[in-house]
Amino acid sequence: MYNDWGGGHVMARPKLAFLNDLVQAITGNERRGKRAPITEEAAARNALSRPASERLAAACDVLMGRIGDAARVAVAEQALAAYAQLTKPERHDFFVMLRDRFNSSPEAIRTAFAAYDADPSARTLVPLFNAVEPPRQTLLRRLNTAPGATLKLVHMRADLLKAIADDPELAPLDSDFGHLFASWFNRGFLTIQRIDWSTPANVLEKIMGYETVHPMKGWQDLRRRLDPADRRFYAFFHPATGDEPLIFVEVALMRDTPAEIAPILNAPALDLAEEADTAVFYSINNTLAGLKGVSFGNFLIKQVVAELAAELPSLTTYVTLSPAPGFAGWLSGVKEPEAVKLAEELDQGAWLMDAAEAERLKPQVEALAARYFTEARSKSGAPRDPVARFHLGNGAAAWRVNWPGDRSDGAVKRAHGLMINYLYEPAAIEAQHEAFVRDGTIATGAPLAAILSR
Amino acid sequence: MYNDWGGGHVMARPKLAFLNDLVQAITGNERRGKRAPITEEAAARNALSRPASERLAAACDVLMGRIGDAARVAVAEQALAAYAQLTKPERHDFFVMLRDRFNSSPEAIRTAFAAYDADPSARTLVPLFNAVEPPRQTLLRRLNTAPGATLKLVHMRADLLKAIADDPELAPLDSDFGHLFASWFNRGFLTIQRIDWSTPANVLEKIMGYETVHPMKGWQDLRRRLDPADRRFYAFFHPATGDEPLIFVEVALMRDTPAEIAPILNAPALDLAEEADTAVFYSINNTLAGLKGVSFGNFLIKQVVAELAAELPSLTTYVTLSPAPGFAGWLSGVKEPEAVKLAEELDQGAWLMDAAEAERLKPQVEALAARYFTEARSKSGAPRDPVARFHLGNGAAAWRVNWPGDRSDGAVKRAHGLMINYLYEPAAIEAQHEAFVRDGTIATGAPLAAILSR
Amino acid sequence: MYNDWGGGHVMARPKLAFLNDLVQAITGNERRGKRAPITEEAAARNALSRPASERLAAACDVLMGRIGDAARVAVAEQALAAYAQLTKPERHDFFVMLRDRFNSSPEAIRTAFAAYDADPSARTLVPLFNAVEPPRQTLLRRLNTAPGATLKLVHMRADLLKAIADDPELAPLDSDFGHLFASWFNRGFLTIQRIDWSTPANVLEKIMGYETVHPMKGWQDLRRRLDPADRRFYAFFHPATGDEPLIFVEVALMRDTPAEIAPILNAPALDLAEEADTAVFYSINNTLAGLKGVSFGNFLIKQVVAELAAELPSLTTYVTLSPAPGFAGWLSGVKEPEAVKLAEELDQGAWLMDAAEAERLKPQVEALAARYFTEARSKSGAPRDPVARFHLGNGAAAWRVNWPGDRSDGAVKRAHGLMINYLYEPAAIEAQHEAFVRDGTIATGAPLAAILSR
Amino acid sequence: MYNDWGGGHVMARPKLAFLNDLVQAITGNERRGKRAPITEEAAARNALSRPASERLAAACDVLMGRIGDAARVAVAEQALAAYAQLTKPERHDFFVMLRDRFNSSPEAIRTAFAAYDADPSARTLVPLFNAVEPPRQTLLRRLNTAPGATLKLVHMRADLLKAIADDPELAPLDSDFGHLFASWFNRGFLTIQRIDWSTPANVLEKIMGYETVHPMKGWQDLRRRLDPADRRFYAFFHPATGDEPLIFVEVALMRDTPAEIAPILNAPALDLAEEADTAVFYSINNTLAGLKGVSFGNFLIKQVVAELAAELPSLTTYVTLSPAPGFAGWLSGVKEPEAVKLAEELDQGAWLMDAAEAERLKPQVEALAARYFTEARSKSGAPRDPVARFHLGNGAAAWRVNWPGDRSDGAVKRAHGLMINYLYEPAAIEAQHEAFVRDGTIATGAPLAAILSR
Repeated sequence: MYNDWGGGHVMARPKLAFLNDLVQAITGNERRGKRAPITEEAAARNALSRPASERLAAACDVLMGRIGDAARVAVAEQALAAYAQLTKPERHDFFVMLRDRFNSSPEAIRTAFAAYDADPSARTLVPLFNAVEPPRQTLLRRLNTAPGATLKLVHMRADLLKAIADDPELAPLDSDFGHLFASWFNRGFLTIQRIDWSTPANVLEKIMGYETVHPMKGWQDLRRRLDPADRRFYAFFHPATGDEPLIFVEVALMRDTPAEIAPILNAPALDLAEEADTAVFYSINNTLAGLKGVSFGNFLIKQVVAELAAELPSLTTYVTLSPAPGFAGWLSGVKEPEAVKLAEELDQGAWLMDAAEAERLKPQVEALAARYFTEARSKSGAPRDPVARFHLGNGAAAWRVNWPGDRSDGAVKRAHGLMINYLYEPAAIEAQHEAFVRDGTIATGAPLAAILSR
Repeated sequence: MYNDWGGGHVMARPKLAFLNDLVQAITGNERRGKRAPITEEAAARNALSRPASERLAAACDVLMGRIGDAARVAVAEQALAAYAQLTKPERHDFFVMLRDRFNSSPEAIRTAFAAYDADPSARTLVPLFNAVEPPRQTLLRRLNTAPGATLKLVHMRADLLKAIADDPELAPLDSDFGHLFASWFNRGFLTIQRIDWSTPANVLEKIMGYETVHPMKGWQDLRRRLDPADRRFYAFFHPATGDEPLIFVEVALMRDTPAEIAPILNAPALDLAEEADTAVFYSINNTLAGLKGVSFGNFLIKQVVAELAAELPSLTTYVTLSPAPGFAGWLSGVKEPEAVKLAEELDQGAWLMDAAEAERLKPQVEALAARYFTEARSKSGAPRDPVARFHLGNGAAAWRVNWPGDRSDGAVKRAHGLMINYLYEPAAIEAQHEAFVRDGTIATGAPLAAILSR
Repeated sequence: MYNDWGGGHVMARPKLAFLNDLVQAITGNERRGKRAPITEEAAARNALSRPASERLAAACDVLMGRIGDAARVAVAEQALAAYAQLTKPERHDFFVMLRDRFNSSPEAIRTAFAAYDADPSARTLVPLFNAVEPPRQTLLRRLNTAPGATLKLVHMRADLLKAIADDPELAPLDSDFGHLFASWFNRGFLTIQRIDWSTPANVLEKIMGYETVHPMKGWQDLRRRLDPADRRFYAFFHPATGDEPLIFVEVALMRDTPAEIAPILNAPALDLAEEADTAVFYSINNTLAGLKGVSFGNFLIKQVVAELAAELPSLTTYVTLSPAPGFAGWLSGVKEPEAVKLAEELDQGAWLMDAAEAERLKPQVEALAARYFTEARSKSGAPRDPVARFHLGNGAAAWRVNWPGDRSDGAVKRAHGLMINYLYEPAAIEAQHEAFVRDGTIATGAPLAAILSR
Repeated sequence: MYNDWGGGHVMARPKLAFLNDLVQAITGNERRGKRAPITEEAAARNALSRPASERLAAACDVLMGRIGDAARVAVAEQALAAYAQLTKPERHDFFVMLRDRFNSSPEAIRTAFAAYDADPSARTLVPLFNAVEPPRQTLLRRLNTAPGATLKLVHMRADLLKAIADDPELAPLDSDFGHLFASWFNRGFLTIQRIDWSTPANVLEKIMGYETVHPMKGWQDLRRRLDPADRRFYAFFHPATGDEPLIFVEVALMRDTPAEIAPILNAPALDLAEEADTAVFYSINNTLAGLKGVSFGNFLIKQVVAELAAELPSLTTYVTLSPAPGFAGWLSGVKEPEAVKLAEELDQGAWLMDAAEAERLKPQVEALAARYFTEARSKSGAPRDPVARFHLGNGAAAWRVNWPGDRSDGAVKRAHGLMINYLYEPAAIEAQHEAFVRDGTIATGAPLAAILSR
């Protein structure tokens, strides 16, 4: 274990004999231009031909050692290239190394704590903080100096999250990634872009791949969502991850609050955006698994409302048409006889084809849906539905349940076809947000309230 | 003092009665559009008419409290606007509040340390880290969500550095700024731009203001440094600080290593860049005092060398023509009789006009200059000359002393007109850097070595 | 007929009573902003409700009359909007009007000619030129002041070319369009753009629609032609027609001159562009029928050769893989018994499936193909094959015939699957061009010459 | 004289022995890359070392001859480079050659006219037009294929205009340039750009040089005209002339119609653009002498009014503050005794310093100014004042005379310090334009009318 990475640049060099050779190879290679063959030193050649896992370990040591800042860029690049070649077990070993080798030193922490404990102050806190902050955070920052590194580190964290699923002992590492990403992906660094039919094809292709709420069937489907006069489509980008959309939202401009998704996905409704009074957010997608926990959605919605309000003064209502992904799971756990019977009937699926049957079931579904959105809670006390957690947490109100709202296979399976509108009413957002955070109060709209009081 | 900012969103609301009114005022104001008068609530009006220091304090509390993420943007904007109105004493009070009120909790630290101490591991480190990291870092991150906030926070740190000069007890705060800025201004987020005569005028104007090594006398002077075929000019920018250059370097393309600055500043030397074999870095300027300690210079030099090498294959030599700002001060402390006499003669200044006199003094100046660059050390053992510390730390060699190299008033006063070339030899940089960091070894070029062995 | 459009602004206003109303309607409407309803004057309303053909005729008169330059922009916009609403017969009538009403005045021509005839000089030529130039050229220039007008006028000429097919008496009009377009679409105004996977989707979609040489089957097919490392794709654009590609060329980077199109269309061949020594132009498409006769292709090829040479120094050969669209038609007219028999066998198509059969026919096809490219001429004496005319006219050589080169339906029908490589050898282009233009000499490459000498 | 440039590509090659060598030199040189020395052929070397006038003449012949389109680009480039080296007398000779050698053929014209005269129709007009259009127009279009050629041809015409001043026999050439430029610089191809403090410095520098109405004293003066919140600055650009502004207008946003220029030039008046109700166009400058007769000003004013109206709904009045450059000259020709006396008193200049004296003279100056703007005519019957011709021709009204309005030397000399406001009232522009064009009627505003009726 290393003693003092940050400050003193003093490091007990590891016993990797080829370390100096590696630095020579990397910086020498760079010196001669990328295409030039490395002929100077056999040792350098050897260093670069070592297994990826060894090169990565060595490069990490170099990055934490006495190398010049500028030379670090090339070493970081090599490290990330080596990481990309690791197998799954090698990645696990790398994460273990990050956790154990680039960990804080208990001795240093104890020493710093003793000084702090004797005189707790902002002054004594500084060395304690330096002792506590794990060296791997510094390592990740240094890896991030390479061109294109940020996106690679986001993907590395996605790998980590998978590895944690198999080996929960890696979980502490995730704090370090999460902590850094919260800084790097600060709202102040994000830029909003309108996505339309003149957006570069490579960005559109990524978006097609990332849309999972209402998957797209190809380019024409994509085009229907962003090209017609009554559609808008926005995404956040970060300067360091370039073309990669971080989150995006799809908007339909309408003359009323919709109850069903299919008409929105199938065709435009209005010839002119100016005719609309309602902006419907009907699909919000986060894209990068490695950015888990870095919140973008609330900022995006707020910004899009501002953009739309500036462009289209005729808009008066901002509302979602959202899935209810936990409804079927919750319903299957409700043991009251009517609920059990309803679940069975829903599972049989006659309602999908038979309008009269759907009409018959509708009041019962609505009643249980209303309970689902207002009563069903997770263990932590938060609403059970993850989409509800997001919108209610943003200060929106659960406005109206819509059934059947989505007849697609996924929606039928997860929610018996149930959908819901959340209403974003600017004047109420802050109070509803606070009531939700403080007391868990769920704001409901008139239609939902009417069902609840039936 | 607050107990747990980060995790639980539980906060003992301060006794500032107008806090809720302020939030209402800010978010309500936003709701109605920026230009609309606030007529709804007298309380909101009152909140916004409170003194800036109170509004700032309240906004900080709101930011750390139960407010929604998206609403934070507006509150952060208000907080920074209020900060901009503070007087110097009010800024001091604000920094004190940052230090004391948004500090870590000793109890929380002791609890987390006890758990860690019993079982030191990556797992128990996480809560300790969370307890130790001061809440003000979170506050600064939240302030940074406002549009344009990053530059304002950089200026805030510049204010802090001045405040620390008067009140060293504020110093611990600087670690928090420094820590965050190191993340935000990571090399990976910077972009290099060539500055030339088609650069926007507002950027050029900033650059004129920031040039302090060889100050510019106006637009024509500026133009001479970036427009001729034998000049290059590069700057680093950061996406979040937009038009603001963070550091810039001025380059003259020449046929030899120059010994004097005046010819470079006065006129172009070559008609075609392709005729040059030497790239001379003759002025490097950091711009923002608030970015102290965030190192850009070494990255910039490395990147510029890469850009120039790609554009101009004829270049073989990369060298600086640098000032020696500590020479006069050092010389005045050398007590040997010849040195004292030389200092006197230099102060009299006859050499400025009289070439023969300059010729006579030259060997003595060179000998002392050679000692200055190779022997003079600060208390910490580093080279006494700050420019030397930078270039030697980058792995450059002290190549040749030049006297008289700069007859401008400032250079005469600070360095008796002495200049020096540092040589950036790609093949040697890493070894020289390491020797310098490890042993303090100063690499010297042949001309300097010749003087030393006289 | 009008007497003097250009100079004196004196015009016998036509008896269209609503003309002034129209101007009022247009400029008044503009004054009030586009969305405002026209309520001021019933007359103005009436004017705008007249049939499109009347509005167009009136707007043309206004454009040629005493209206202010700036007001013309709005009138031109109305004229083009009215044109877009015309039916096919109305378009015919409009073209007749352009021809007859906006024609030069015989009296004015005779007068100017008399003066010129008496004293032929540059001085007397000026008024003659002014009398001879048809007023419709001025009208077209004035229509072109409207935003987006240039593309609309190009489409108008495409309509005209169709109308001429039905009514050859309209042909003189085409000279006027052709004359203006040659000026507007001057090479100096065109910009080359590389098309790749980051090109806006709307541009890519246009390109898919315009590709007729080797039609694309969708986005994945398109992507295979521009995204792999061994592909390049370039188009010319004009500032006034924005996103509209005017011509584009598809390039495969290879290690040899290809003989067959299918492998090129199906998959990339090289992992790195740097491995290629041959750039193959395998598809060149003009896009806008209305730009007939405005030559872009030669400029584009020249420019693309320059771009590729700068990017990839390893390239040594620039060659096409081109269709032979006139081969089947020509062969069907060759009356020699072997040719007749060959044509029959080719029509039967056994060679398409049976490699041995193809092998058997190959020498005969090659022999006739060689004759086709070197002997077959149109009535004007030019090569009969239109693609040959283009490349030979550019100074390329007919290098090698390839059979079977293209088994697609269209190529089998038009050319019995024959393809040909034209070689662009920079050192020979000018001489070959001149020999071709002067004497009709067709440059042939060694492979083709070998067949001819069999 | 050439017989048929355009159609048949048949040309009597001139007796310039080095013509082929020149083509070889140019295209060969291009082939080898620009920096490669020409070593292949002594003949080619010789060709390029001939005097510029010979090279230009030869290149023109090549351009009109049998050379390939693509090769023309390089020849056109050489021709323009050779032109740039001509002395003034050589330029004169070149223009004579353009006029005489690249003139239409009288025989061809007579033949085409005979056919037309026998049957005047659109059909017979086409060959007549082709015979009449001078080959030099084709030559200029071919020169325009070179990169950057358009601006060079504009400068060539500026040279021609100077040459015509010495030799009026060159005047017919100017029609050809004018005719082409009207097509090339069509309104539809221009783009408007707002000029502000973030505009590239090279564009700003050009603008400083081109401002002649109220010359700028340097960068700070420039900045005062475009950076403050109450200023706007717009220019037209053309894609083919890049960074070169073609015309620009300076606007001050005010709360009233100004009577004096100095306050506008000295300092901003309003803190916020939104406070203004009046947009004052106080300086309009055409930039390129070679674009004489190509009208931009009216389009620019119209477009700027549209831009301002969209940005600032508070604006109600669009007005100029304009010089009266012909007033002093006109007044000196008025022989009435009071006018003679007034002119003398104005020349003495006491009014410049003595407010009472100015007050005393004011009514007399106003009375004569009102006559000047409403009665003074040039020989052609148009208003004598050139600025008046421009604005009245655009449909503006002469609104108010202002004296003293401009105390600068130039304004005192040319106009005894008189200025005038022209009012652009959208509702009246078309009618005023037509009345002005038809009858020469000058629209006057109430203040001017009041003076006239005194």
